[in-house]
Amino acid sequence: MRGTLMYAPGDVRVVDREMPTIVEPTDAILKVTAACVCGSDLWPYRGFDQLTQPRPMGHEYVGVVHEVGSAVTTVKPGDFVIGSFYASDNTCEICRAGYQTHCVQAQYAAATGSQSEYVRIALADGTLVATPGLPDPELIPSLLTASDVFGTGWFGAIAAEVAPGKTVAVVGDGAVGLLAVLAAKQQGAERIIAMSRHADRQALAREFGATDIVTERGEEGAAAIKELTNGLGAHSTIEAVGTDEAMAQAIAATRHGGHVGFVGLSHDVNISGMTMFRTGIHLHGGPAPVRRFLPELIDMIWTKQVDPGKVFDLTLPLEQAAEAYAAMDTRRAIKVLLQP
Amino acid sequence: MRGTLMYAPGDVRVVDREMPTIVEPTDAILKVTAACVCGSDLWPYRGFDQLTQPRPMGHEYVGVVHEVGSAVTTVKPGDFVIGSFYASDNTCEICRAGYQTHCVQAQYAAATGSQSEYVRIALADGTLVATPGLPDPELIPSLLTASDVFGTGWFGAIAAEVAPGKTVAVVGDGAVGLLAVLAAKQQGAERIIAMSRHADRQALAREFGATDIVTERGEEGAAAIKELTNGLGAHSTIEAVGTDEAMAQAIAATRHGGHVGFVGLSHDVNISGMTMFRTGIHLHGGPAPVRRFLPELIDMIWTKQVDPGKVFDLTLPLEQAAEAYAAMDTRRAIKVLLQP
Repeated sequence: MRGTLMYAPGDVRVVDREMPTIVEPTDAILKVTAACVCGSDLWPYRGFDQLTQPRPMGHEYVGVVHEVGSAVTTVKPGDFVIGSFYASDNTCEICRAGYQTHCVQAQYAAATGSQSEYVRIALADGTLVATPGLPDPELIPSLLTASDVFGTGWFGAIAAEVAPGKTVAVVGDGAVGLLAVLAAKQQGAERIIAMSRHADRQALAREFGATDIVTERGEEGAAAIKELTNGLGAHSTIEAVGTDEAMAQAIAATRHGGHVGFVGLSHDVNISGMTMFRTGIHLHGGPAPVRRFLPELIDMIWTKQVDPGKVFDLTLPLEQAAEAYAAMDTRRAIKVLLQP
Repeated sequence: MRGTLMYAPGDVRVVDREMPTIVEPTDAILKVTAACVCGSDLWPYRGFDQLTQPRPMGHEYVGVVHEVGSAVTTVKPGDFVIGSFYASDNTCEICRAGYQTHCVQAQYAAATGSQSEYVRIALADGTLVATPGLPDPELIPSLLTASDVFGTGWFGAIAAEVAPGKTVAVVGDGAVGLLAVLAAKQQGAERIIAMSRHADRQALAREFGATDIVTERGEEGAAAIKELTNGLGAHSTIEAVGTDEAMAQAIAATRHGGHVGFVGLSHDVNISGMTMFRTGIHLHGGPAPVRRFLPELIDMIWTKQVDPGKVFDLTLPLEQAAEAYAAMDTRRAIKVLLQP
């Protein structure tokens, strides 16, 4: 079968690979219907993470169950399924508290990489959720976002305690930031301020529910948000970048006692205890426990209440994975869907 | 009148001072019934905060209203009152959200220092709460704790989302840490692990509701707590010290997805974004919005459900304030009550 490997920064190739097989009785093999490239895949692509050997790529996926291990009981061959990017048993104390990404058995779900024709998924029962039936093709992109970026934006809004009547600021206009806008809208936010400098992303943010756009960054961006909020700052701010500047901007944009939810994969972020003390904000985030939200997200998509798949502004055949990475790296595309 | 000034690190004196007078129409003057020395008063005493001129000391107080400004309507001369260490208008958006210490008009409440015969309190209507009548003398110490240390321990437990069924760890065995144990007990915690190396403080922690004592610190302390909690860590941890080591210990002692409430005045604390991301903990704290909790705390004390005044293990006349500081500095006393 064909699958994507990263050999070195900037060097992504689709090659012939072994067909994945069941290793643990809790595994499932999926025939991948659609996969995509994540912002976090760009960290090794840009040389920020070290590669010691060719790395199978891709952790977002929707597909049809091809085979299951002997212990799998909740999905069966032929089911159309979506799963989180992290595998979880969904039964331990941490999972039952809603933190499946921190499951005592947590591991990458797409053990063999999902930018591929087939993929082996770990802990299938605790990770995969079947849709009510085979989806209309037009629903595929939106269902695919539930595997990571929509689930992650959703968690960002949950972590920031978005609620009716609140003003929400979103730092970051990548797919996660844009879907955090959509999540904030669905969770009842009264006002949603998207921080973005790109016209196309601003337009999509407005389509997803943003009521205001702030183009300034850093202290100026935070000041602009205070100006929009009676000098106080947002009730809830979602940080969807992962840099020190973005976190500082998010904290500064939030009112004292407010909530910052962060879902950007932290690189070089440092938070001073005195800033936390002085502002009295709540801080919560991390890898989104997508599994917690999957049934709800699938239902919203299935019943066409939301269309998060709009974040895909480029669709390519799997064979052109290298071009998908290049397009996202150079910001020619927000997010690229790959069709095996 | 007599009042306490700090002239330099280690140099505390009770001297003749001007009788405080109404400056703003929102002020009140109290005749102080009891005041005390706070752990945070030891920072300048030990030379960690700079003193440019003699500083009036004391921010915890209970007393009888002596005089009120023309705008004050909720308390009147003769009332016995307690107030937060921070003054608040209790009407702004931030106050209404329960964060009175971050009020848009926030300022130190005891404008002229409370380790004194009389004190001027700012924003009296939004800061002071009258008791149902003149208290029995035996209630005075407990009522005094509501002004800061009990309110702060209470907020630590609220910030750590203590609730029935949860296991709570407390880092710090000063008055705030000990009262965080009491708060956790009152808020329904199932198991309360106090981290302490001092036999007298361990005994008081047990009296307040601690079910377990851990004497190890740092990584060993966190490991001991994981051992007590099925390898997972506490649901809720209260950090009541304010150092980098204490914060690291608190985070390490908490299960993934759990809550850390911090009320130690942050000195040199730095939190890595990657630690926050990797652990998925919730972090919240800062100066306790004591005003939010005062009615509830006063009621609990008035009806003798709790006796937080037990943290005072030394009572001295105001004239011996210097000895009060020395006793706390050398850990001969947990907390010292001063009687003007």
